Amino acid sequence: MAADTAFLQEVSWNSDGLLPAIAQDWKTGQVLMMAWMNEESLRCSLEEGHAVYWSRSRQRLWRKGESSGNTQLVKAVHLDCDGDTLLLTVEQLGGIACHTGREHCFFRRFRDGQWQDEVPVKKDPAEIYGNAR
Amino acid sequence: MAADTAFLQEVSWNSDGLLPAIAQDWKTGQVLMMAWMNEESLRCSLEEGHAVYWSRSRQRLWRKGESSGNTQLVKAVHLDCDGDTLLLTVEQLGGIACHTGREHCFFRRFRDGQWQDEVPVKKDPAEIYGNAR
Repeated sequence: MAADTAFLQEVSWNSDGLLPAIAQDWKTGQVLMMAWMNEESLRCSLEEGHAVYWSRSRQRLWRKGESSGNTQLVKAVHLDCDGDTLLLTVEQLGGIACHTGREHCFFRRFRDGQWQDEVPVKKDPAEIYGNAR
Repeated sequence: MAADTAFLQEVSWNSDGLLPAIAQDWKTGQVLMMAWMNEESLRCSLEEGHAVYWSRSRQRLWRKGESSGNTQLVKAVHLDCDGDTLLLTVEQLGGIACHTGREHCFFRRFRDGQWQDEVPVKKDPAEIYGNAR
């Protein structure tokens, strides 16, 4: 095994060859989103310095920001104790991580028995994605 | 459908009836761990105010801290845009979220082609769990 890929063997991929990757803002600490990575997307993220996920719906590599321009610069990558979850510390370019046009994806808070939207839309998705979406 | 369980219908459970739940420290913003929840564990977490996960290895509810005493007080619960990931804002009692005796689970940072342990053990797991582990 090449020394430069040995670190991939310490990752516990699930039966689909994936693991969850949490993206956290490097300055505010806000958890921006959770997506999935396969081996190739992890390697690409580390080599390119931009977050690259695996899109389960499209079954292909998903370079975060490829449509919106809102890429994520990777500042650090951490693996958890069980080796089955990643934490990415990122700089979110454009300040928008969510496809709804919000800063982050966790905008629905549980209150009074309901999920309540508590984060404003920064930019209309139609503006972000044009006709592509 | 009872009004008080309608919020559960907005959650997108996976084919095993689970979804990932990220626990984040309410003060430091440190991401402590990622675990899984099923419907019952989410209901219990909300009702009891302590994080209750679903242990996939043991196939049963896992009241975080049931062995160690290091329970997590739930301050807020957020659902993401797709409804398939939860973010829990918690107060980590005992200051130790990880079964290795560390403050959190994401202690291995990718550096120079390797995962490098950068977080000290606060308490020997043998002391935390005794013979139970």
